[in-house]
This record gives sequence, C-alpha cells and structure tokens, in this order.
Amino acid sequence: MIVEMRKGASSEEIDSVVEKAKSLGLDVQLNLGIEKAVVAILGSNTGQLPTELFAVLSGVENVTRIMKPYKLASRGFKEEDSLVSVDGIEIGGRRIVVMAGPCAVESEEQLVEAARVVKECGACILRGGAFKPRTSPFSFQGMGESGLKLLARTKEQLGLPVITEVIESQDVGLVSKYADILQVGSRNMQNFALLTNIGKSRCPVVLKRGFSCTVTEWLTAADYLLAGGNNQVILCERGIRTFEDSTRFSLDISSIPVIKNSSHLPIIVDPSHAAGHYSLVPAIAKAAVAAGADGLLIEVHPNPKEALVDGLQSLSPSDFARLMEELRAIAKSVGRYI
Amino acid sequence: MIVEMRKGASSEEIDSVVEKAKSLGLDVQLNLGIEKAVVAILGSNTGQLPTELFAVLSGVENVTRIMKPYKLASRGFKEEDSLVSVDGIEIGGRRIVVMAGPCAVESEEQLVEAARVVKECGACILRGGAFKPRTSPFSFQGMGESGLKLLARTKEQLGLPVITEVIESQDVGLVSKYADILQVGSRNMQNFALLTNIGKSRCPVVLKRGFSCTVTEWLTAADYLLAGGNNQVILCERGIRTFEDSTRFSLDISSIPVIKNSSHLPIIVDPSHAAGHYSLVPAIAKAAVAAGADGLLIEVHPNPKEALVDGLQSLSPSDFARLMEELRAIAKSVGRYI
Amino acid sequence: MIVEMRKGASSEEIDSVVEKAKSLGLDVQLNLGIEKAVVAILGSNTGQLPTELFAVLSGVENVTRIMKPYKLASRGFKEEDSLVSVDGIEIGGRRIVVMAGPCAVESEEQLVEAARVVKECGACILRGGAFKPRTSPFSFQGMGESGLKLLARTKEQLGLPVITEVIESQDVGLVSKYADILQVGSRNMQNFALLTNIGKSRCPVVLKRGFSCTVTEWLTAADYLLAGGNNQVILCERGIRTFEDSTRFSLDISSIPVIKNSSHLPIIVDPSHAAGHYSLVPAIAKAAVAAGADGLLIEVHPNPKEALVDGLQSLSPSDFARLMEELRAIAKSVGRYI
Amino acid sequence: MIVEMRKGASSEEIDSVVEKAKSLGLDVQLNLGIEKAVVAILGSNTGQLPTELFAVLSGVENVTRIMKPYKLASRGFKEEDSLVSVDGIEIGGRRIVVMAGPCAVESEEQLVEAARVVKECGACILRGGAFKPRTSPFSFQGMGESGLKLLARTKEQLGLPVITEVIESQDVGLVSKYADILQVGSRNMQNFALLTNIGKSRCPVVLKRGFSCTVTEWLTAADYLLAGGNNQVILCERGIRTFEDSTRFSLDISSIPVIKNSSHLPIIVDPSHAAGHYSLVPAIAKAAVAAGADGLLIEVHPNPKEALVDGLQSLSPSDFARLMEELRAIAKSVGRYI
Repeated sequence: MIVEMRKGASSEEIDSVVEKAKSLGLDVQLNLGIEKAVVAILGSNTGQLPTELFAVLSGVENVTRIMKPYKLASRGFKEEDSLVSVDGIEIGGRRIVVMAGPCAVESEEQLVEAARVVKECGACILRGGAFKPRTSPFSFQGMGESGLKLLARTKEQLGLPVITEVIESQDVGLVSKYADILQVGSRNMQNFALLTNIGKSRCPVVLKRGFSCTVTEWLTAADYLLAGGNNQVILCERGIRTFEDSTRFSLDISSIPVIKNSSHLPIIVDPSHAAGHYSLVPAIAKAAVAAGADGLLIEVHPNPKEALVDGLQSLSPSDFARLMEELRAIAKSVGRYI
Repeated sequence: MIVEMRKGASSEEIDSVVEKAKSLGLDVQLNLGIEKAVVAILGSNTGQLPTELFAVLSGVENVTRIMKPYKLASRGFKEEDSLVSVDGIEIGGRRIVVMAGPCAVESEEQLVEAARVVKECGACILRGGAFKPRTSPFSFQGMGESGLKLLARTKEQLGLPVITEVIESQDVGLVSKYADILQVGSRNMQNFALLTNIGKSRCPVVLKRGFSCTVTEWLTAADYLLAGGNNQVILCERGIRTFEDSTRFSLDISSIPVIKNSSHLPIIVDPSHAAGHYSLVPAIAKAAVAAGADGLLIEVHPNPKEALVDGLQSLSPSDFARLMEELRAIAKSVGRYI
Repeated sequence: MIVEMRKGASSEEIDSVVEKAKSLGLDVQLNLGIEKAVVAILGSNTGQLPTELFAVLSGVENVTRIMKPYKLASRGFKEEDSLVSVDGIEIGGRRIVVMAGPCAVESEEQLVEAARVVKECGACILRGGAFKPRTSPFSFQGMGESGLKLLARTKEQLGLPVITEVIESQDVGLVSKYADILQVGSRNMQNFALLTNIGKSRCPVVLKRGFSCTVTEWLTAADYLLAGGNNQVILCERGIRTFEDSTRFSLDISSIPVIKNSSHLPIIVDPSHAAGHYSLVPAIAKAAVAAGADGLLIEVHPNPKEALVDGLQSLSPSDFARLMEELRAIAKSVGRYI
Repeated sequence: MIVEMRKGASSEEIDSVVEKAKSLGLDVQLNLGIEKAVVAILGSNTGQLPTELFAVLSGVENVTRIMKPYKLASRGFKEEDSLVSVDGIEIGGRRIVVMAGPCAVESEEQLVEAARVVKECGACILRGGAFKPRTSPFSFQGMGESGLKLLARTKEQLGLPVITEVIESQDVGLVSKYADILQVGSRNMQNFALLTNIGKSRCPVVLKRGFSCTVTEWLTAADYLLAGGNNQVILCERGIRTFEDSTRFSLDISSIPVIKNSSHLPIIVDPSHAAGHYSLVPAIAKAAVAAGADGLLIEVHPNPKEALVDGLQSLSPSDFARLMEELRAIAKSVGRYI
C-alpha cells in the first residue's frame, strides 16, 4: 500500500502513518521526495486491508493499494489452471462445455423437449431455472421445488447433468439435492450470506458476474466461496451495464483474457442475457470461444414464442443446431473441441 | 405498448400480433403507415406485461412500453405524498429528518457516544449496522444479534429510534424485534426474497437504490414491498456507479425531483456512501436538501480514525455539528426545518 | 413517433398535438385508451424530427421515437452491404482486412521497419499517426506534416496504402493528399465541422466510435459523412467507457452484430485502444473476427519499449506474427480469409 | 510513480526500471518486499509522464501514478481561488453569477425578448448559441456569424455581457470579436486544437466537462488553456453519461466539492443540459448553489414551445422568475448573493 502525504505534511503526521502500519505488523519504507513524502507499506496481506485505515489519518492525501483485495482466486495463490469436474465432464480443460436449455422450467413436456434438442446438438449440461428472481412482483416467479424435481427426472431420463439457480441462502441444501451445479445469479454476486453458505457445500458452482461489478469485485466474491472450502468454482461473464441501449447488457469480452491472466478459475460466457435478443446470440457466442472462454451457457427453448420468461433471447432448436456447427469450427481453430 | 412491424411485414404477421393481444384481453388499434405498420396495444396493466411477448413474434421490429413497469409506487396510483411515521417522527412532511450514527456498531461505548453526539446536534434517528455485507470475506462482518441488542439498549437510554440493516430474508423477524426502521442495502435492492419478506412485515423500511439500478427498477422493487401490504416505504438515494473515480459513487441528485414527479414515496439521501470521503459529505448533504430530499442518512463516528468500517466517510462530532448548523439554514431557505 | 398524453389531458391539449403534427405535414392516428390518450404520428422522416417538438406541449407525458434518427447509414435505406475500395483492397467483402503499424510516426527508420514487419505478416494497410490528439498538453503531439510525408514515402517504397488521422477540419485537404484512408478519432466522432468537411471529400474514411456514444449516435454521425456525398465510410469499434478498470476501455463486441443488423456499412475493430495492454490484444482481435468484423486496426511497433506513444498496447513484431497465424485459422472457420 | 514488479522479477528487470528512471532525470527509491519489489520514482513532474514508459518494461506488473496528470489547474500549483472578471462581474467570488438565455439565437425578436426577461430577473450574463453542434446533419445548425452580430447588438442595447460557443479552432478570432466569454461545449472538451487556440487568446472561457470525461481529464484539458497563457478559465459541470435514462445526463453534484478541493478555478453548473426537461431544472440549480457552485448557466426561452432547439429543457420567463427568487434564498443561506 502506498500512502502519499499532502505537500507540507508535518513530521508528526508522517509518524502517525508509520506507527499505524507498525501497529498492524507491517513493514514501512519512507520516501521523502522534494515535494511530498510517500510511505510504502509492505506485507503479505496488505491487499485485504482497507485503504481507509490510512486515508483517514490527517496529512494523508491519497492511498493506493498495490496488492489486489482477492487472494484465493488469484493466479498468485495458485498458478496452474483449476479444473471443475461434473459427472466426468471437465470444465476448464480443452473441451468447450456447452450448457443449454430454457430460462425457466415451465412443464415436463417443455423441459424434456428442450433437453432432447440440446443433447442432440452436443450440449452436455442442461440449464433450467426453478427459482426466478424477477424485476417485478407481478411476473412469473418460477415453479420452485416442483421445477427442481422435473430437472432431476429429466436428468435421469436423458443422462444430462443439471445446472439451476439458487437465490436464497436457506435453499442451498434443497437445491444441491437436485442440481449438479448451483448457479449464483448476477443480482446475487454480492449476496454474501448466500456465498458463505455455498462455500460450505461441495457442490460445483457457477458464479455469474454482477452486472455492475468489476473483475476485481468478482474475484473477491469468488474468495467467499473458496474461503469456505468449496473450490469447484466456475466464473460466468454475462454482460455489464453501460450507457449502450441496443443490447440488454454489454458483454465484456475483454474480461476473458483478464480473468485468464489474473485467476486460475475457469470462465464461461452467457451470451443470451447479455444480448437480450436471439439474433445477436450466435456472434457473441462465437466471439467468446475465440477469446478463450471455457464454455457457454445458452438459452434454448423448444418454442421461444410461447416462453414464459426471456423468450426473446432464447434460440429455437434449429438456430441452436446451426450455432453448434459454427462453434465446432471456431473451437477447432483455437485448438479445442466441443 | 407500441409494436412496430418490420418494413414489408406480411398481413399474417400483423394478424398474429393482434391475436396475441386479444388473447391477453387487450385492446388493439392498428396504424398502417406508408412505410410500416404500427400496432398500439391498450389496457390498464400493459406496464406489467413483458415486451417480449410481442417482440418475439415474427415480423416485429421493436416493442416500446408506454406504461411504466411499476404501479403501486407511482403517483398515478396514489396522487398525494405518502408519510411514514416512526415513533411520532414523520418522514415525508415539512421536517427534514436526519438519521445519523456509525456505519457499524462496534461496542456499547462507541454507540452510546455516537448516539449522544448526533442527538445533541439535532439528529432524530440513530443509524448503526449490526449485520455488514462486506466485499471481502476477510473483512469485519458486524456484531450480529449482540449489535442489535446494543442498538435497542441505546435507544432506551437516549430515546432515539433506530435504523439498521437486514441482509437475509430469514432475519426479518429478528431484526424487526429490535429496529424501528429496517434498511435494505444497495446490494440487496433486487434481492426479491428479502423484499417479499419485508413486504409481509409492517415495519417501516428504507429501500436503498441499487448502485446500478435505474429509477424505474428502484420503484419496481418498491412495488415488491407495497404489494405485500407494507406501505411504510422510504426510498434512499446513495450514489450510482459511473466511470468517475474521484468519488466512491456518483450521487444522482436529479433522482430527487424525478422521484418527486413519479412517485408518492418519501426520499432521503445518504451522502456518506456516495462520497466515500468525509470532506465531500457536507456539500452533497446540503445539495440534497436544496433539491427536495425529505431526509438524510449520515455516518458519524466519535473517532473516525479508529472506526472498523468506513471511517474515511464518517464525520467527526465537530464536523457533524457544523454541518447541522448549515443544513438548518438551507432547510429554512426551502421552507422546511430540521 | 408516439405521443403519450398525461392521464386526464384535456381535448384541447390533445388537439394541439394533432395540429402540431399536421403543421409539419405528418399523418396522425389517435388512440383513446381508457386511461390515457396516445397519438401516433406517421410519416417517412419522423426519425429526423426532434421529439421535443411534441414533448414540450402541455398535457404530454412522454414521446417515443419509433424511427431511428439516422437514415443514410441504415439498412432500411440501402439493403445490400457496402464495400469500400482502397487501392484495389476491398473492405466489407470476404477478406478480413488487417491495418497495422505504430500508433505515432516517430522517424523514417521506425516507420519503415514497422511497415516491413506488418507487410510480411500479411497486413495490407499501414497505420501511423502524424497528428496526435493527446490528453495532456505536455505530451508528444505528433510529427505533423513531416510525418505525413514519411507515410507517403514508405507507401511508395513498400506498396502499402496508408491510413492516418485527421484532427482538424482545415487539415482535411492536406491529409487527403498523403493518405489513402482518413481516420476520425474517437474524440472527434461528434466533431461535426470535421465530419462535414470529410463528407465533401471522396477519400475513404474510418469513423471511430466515440467512447461514450451509442450505436445510434455513431450511425447518425456517419450520416454527416454520407450526407456530404462521401460513401466510402468504414466504422471502427474501439471500446466504450464503463466502470470496469482492468482494461482501458470495454470493447463492445455486441456492436458488431448490432451494426450488421442496422447498417450496410463495413465495420472493423481496434483491439489495441480498447485493451490498453498488449497481452489482451490477441484475444480481443480473435473475438472480433469470430463475431463478424470486416477488419482490424492493430498497433505494432518494432520496439514497443521505446515507443513515444502507447507502447504498452503495441504488439512486438513476433507477437504480431503469431497473432496473424491465429487470425488466419479463425477467419477460415467463419468462411473468410486474411 | 510507483512501479510494482512481478513476483519473481529478476534483478536485471528491476535494474532496467531504475535505469529508465535515471535516464529521465528522476530519483528512485527501491523497496524490496518479501513477495515483490516496488520501485518508487520521484520527481516534480512525474504527473506528466506516461505510466507506459515503465509499464511496458519486462517484469513490471503495474504502474500507479501518484501525482495527477494536470498541473497548472491544480491547487498545488496555485493555492488561492482564481477569479475571472467579465465587464466588472467577478466569477468565483461571493456573488453567484447567473448566465441565462436561449439555447440558440433564432431571431432578433426572440433574443432581445429573452435578454430582457433574464436581465429583469437578475441574470447578469446573456447566453445564446450561434454555432450549434447537432447530433444529426438534418437538424438546425445555428445562425452562424449573423447570430453573433445579433448577440453583440443585444449586448449594446441591454448592457449584458454575452457568452457563446465556439466549435472550430479557426473561428476563435471571429467569435472573440463578438463574445465576452467563449464557451467550449462538452463534445469539444478534448478538441485539443480548439483548446490550444483559445489558450492563445485572452478571452474568458467556460470549459464544459466532456459528458464522459473524469474530473482529472477535465482539469488536464484546462491545462491546455492555461498552458497557452489564458488564465481566465471557468469550469462548467453539465452532467455525465450513465446508465440512468430518466434524465438526459446525470449531473455529477459531487464534482463541485471535488473541484474545490483539487483546483483553484471557479466552477459553474448547467442544469438544463443535464436534466433535459424543464421540470427538473429548478431542483438541480438549487442543489448546485447549495453545493458551492460559483454560478449557473440556464436555458430560458420567451416561448419554449416554439424553440428551434432544446425547447424541452428551457424555462419559460415565469418559471425562471420563480427560480431566481428561490435561488436568492439558497444563496443567502450559504453566505452568498445573486
């Protein structure tokens, strides 16, 4: 941490910074420049210290953190890539893992039909929401536990592992009983009670990026999961909120190489929520694979026009089949396969 | 809702839009322009319908919602200003209600000292957090229930009603036992499970704006509380996330008149979290009152340099005393008082 | 244009909207809903009319534009893809056109060396800035006309057409004398005087997206060029400003399919300015090609460590050579070539 | 500047950083932590050096600038507040200076009528645009020089100094002949050619903040003006672009105290462009004065419903008269006057 003193700060003010650092067990190196003094504070866990501890002291102009606030999710902590394994399917390896299915579980017929389609096209994990966080209280809120049961039954029938969202910390146990992968939605990325509970479980988890959270905050949220002992963590980029309004969110394609540089965790991409419109999904999905994503989470509905939720961003079976063909070519061109 | 058809859309495509509307019990008016057809869909609850129902149909280019997605929070639904009453203190009336105190409850001594200071200076509600949602799992997470007990004891001692945050839906009952006002934090504005549970309670609630949520989404979240029957709802602007990095968040001062135009609910402002630095708090607090805010939520710590959380944005007792003097002058100039 | 009246608007107020529309030669269709009246205003150029003309009238609640404000750049205006031809190189066709070179022209030696490298690796257009818009007045501002002359000489020597930036409207003539493609920088996307002058020229032009401009504003700016008669327009996505700070800007990958849907103009991508760091450039470049970009604009410097401007985001010759190999594979996988 | 080396950086890599610094005439202090080395680079002008000079060297992980990139506009450079004087009116002193008038000069009648109204209500400077930068080429572009002449004539008649926008560097001489204050619009804040030319003039200038520029970039742009010798510089906050869509831009109220801390230059606020709607202008204007702004720039039109440009955000004469009364009360409450 670098503490920059104000021009003309007194030696008492500088001393109080040095003492604060020492009281926290940290090393200090003092740079007395011509215009202002700068105090470098050294130690192995300065990333986890709030900068305010020093910024609040009198005579201090600015405090800059050199170390990142996340630790367990960082490449510095673990150099080699992490692999997450789900029913023998490895996420983070050479295979591009495609998870697909409807936004919400609506009925057995819809779910089984969707599962059949996505399996035929080469997806290896089935997605489907039973608990749906909805912006308006007047919208369809999901089927709840009966939706989870349909997911489990479909899994048995077709042999596709299942990913579904958990939205409350008290439901972690319930959802884990049925799901192979828990999904933490964008609005819950900083629901720390939920993260803490999932951290205690050993169920693989997809942590979606908060739509207004930085990569640094995202990896710090991942630390909540890892700190609890759950190291089956997959990150999922799904678009951030910007001023641009031609898409629902702006997919942050650069976050893929940034994560690959900074973290050992696998990262997948959800092009459907970012785009908000089915016609944009294929281009974004292809870009994600080309940029190095380890997988995709795609909404597919047997009949998007009848979908209860997010029909507009769902691919039809034939669109999905075509996209999978195109993705295979892209995957091959970057030395991977689907 | 306005459904704009693509140039050259067929009459079958137009018909399918009309039929969809009729199947939902809505009226339709058809405008056949020279270049393209436009279908206006009329009805009293089109604000609550997803635009996708139509956008997904073939031949449709664009769907625009004319009615807002929120309903109960709107001025259209209730024209006169709502007042929220807490121990005889009215929020939303002529009085500017100042809620102040430390970010986190740290000890009895700290809390009582803070309460004394803020009461002396004219604040009429004590703030203090017992459950703290923290970005990093390695930071202080609050005192929990023992913090709530300290709040209740301090209230008894000094006669100041108390506002404190609830972060989990299962804790709503527990926190309501001790608190006079529940606070929903920015990161929980779209935690719909939490909102639903608070909606069932009758405890006054401050709903902080999600730092990346629009005013429309904020009022739609308020609908979750109101739909449950809890109409003791106070909105709180606390800054939004933008590209600007000289402050922690950018306080959206315009949201005050926007809310006053669109909603009947009272609105207060938290200048401390927006600013992130004590030196900026007074200017923002004064601006909020001048712009029409009904109250303020300000962090004050007996000794900011020793604060465990957010010391940098906390006012010292003397700074707070000075600010309250200045606020009294501003309040008077806009025909209100503190 | 859809004019939504306030609940309870008087019939005089509705009439004044209708009259305003008629005075502008527009057709009107009136929808009298149960709760509020809605006036649809129809005509072929309502996209170019300011919504304020109606929003300012009394009794009006909201005005929504149905038609886009841009016209000449839209697919509605011209359905088939536009091709821009530079010295026999077609931009917007099956070939992915790679433009590469140093950010700034620094010396003949540097430029010729860079040109040789990029040509060898398969780039077909040389980039290099002679006029540099710099954030600080104390930074290197470019070589000016002598830089242009070096570009022209290098072109002659190596047979590579040249793209360079023009930053002032009075320089359009000068720069066109030396350059094969004019570049309008991000900060000048809404410099309408400059656009108007370039519109009068017949020189191909790359219009970079303003880093805080929407796709709609970008296409409307392109209308300035097209309205002047210059239809040799290439769009260039180079990242938008968001809250994310791990990259210099956030490349808006979705803008590629959005532009392909909305406009007939070719679009290229500048991964260097978006990323701000050479290590992120390859992933973004590959994603752009996979998403459908027609070309790339990449910074390459013979010795990035000695670059006067933007060395950090410049690829070294060996990094560029490796990237071009990877891009060839991606291009092939989407049915194109380099 | 703080150069943080990668974990495990070699001593050669560290040396190359030290040498680079020395070659630039800078002092160096080396901190060898347990986990990584950190090099502090000291000198009086490190704010003006690009961080890339070091970031590009091998073994470097991150470079943080401690000093700000602006210099002449900073409080460090000049401690006491700057005053700008226009025809005896001082901007930056105790008086709140209100500049008001129509967005665009449309005719002599309109301008004189507007000028009379704003003068009667207590505004002391007349605003009016002759050159209008418009988003679409099909919109009204202003009256040009004949508009300037009308401004000058109105000034003579009523004795109100005049502020008007200059949009091209070649027009600086022309506009200065007629105007008392030059205005640089938001889209031109980083038009460095324009800034350089105005820097050479001695005409007072209002520098509007780019709607997507940080405070730091804004003050760095002011350095262009000051570096040329023009120290009659007034800053103007006019709203930044964010995701919020209920207002045209989000007025960054916190920028007022931030500027007051960081710079000696006066700052005024334009509530009209931020709001985009007349009904929101008064609340924002009052907030600006309460927060410490030195003046306001407000759009007033004798008949907003007939305005050619921005009628929706213009106040009518009676609305403006009422606002001025309210502003007088606020000004008094913060120890100032209008």
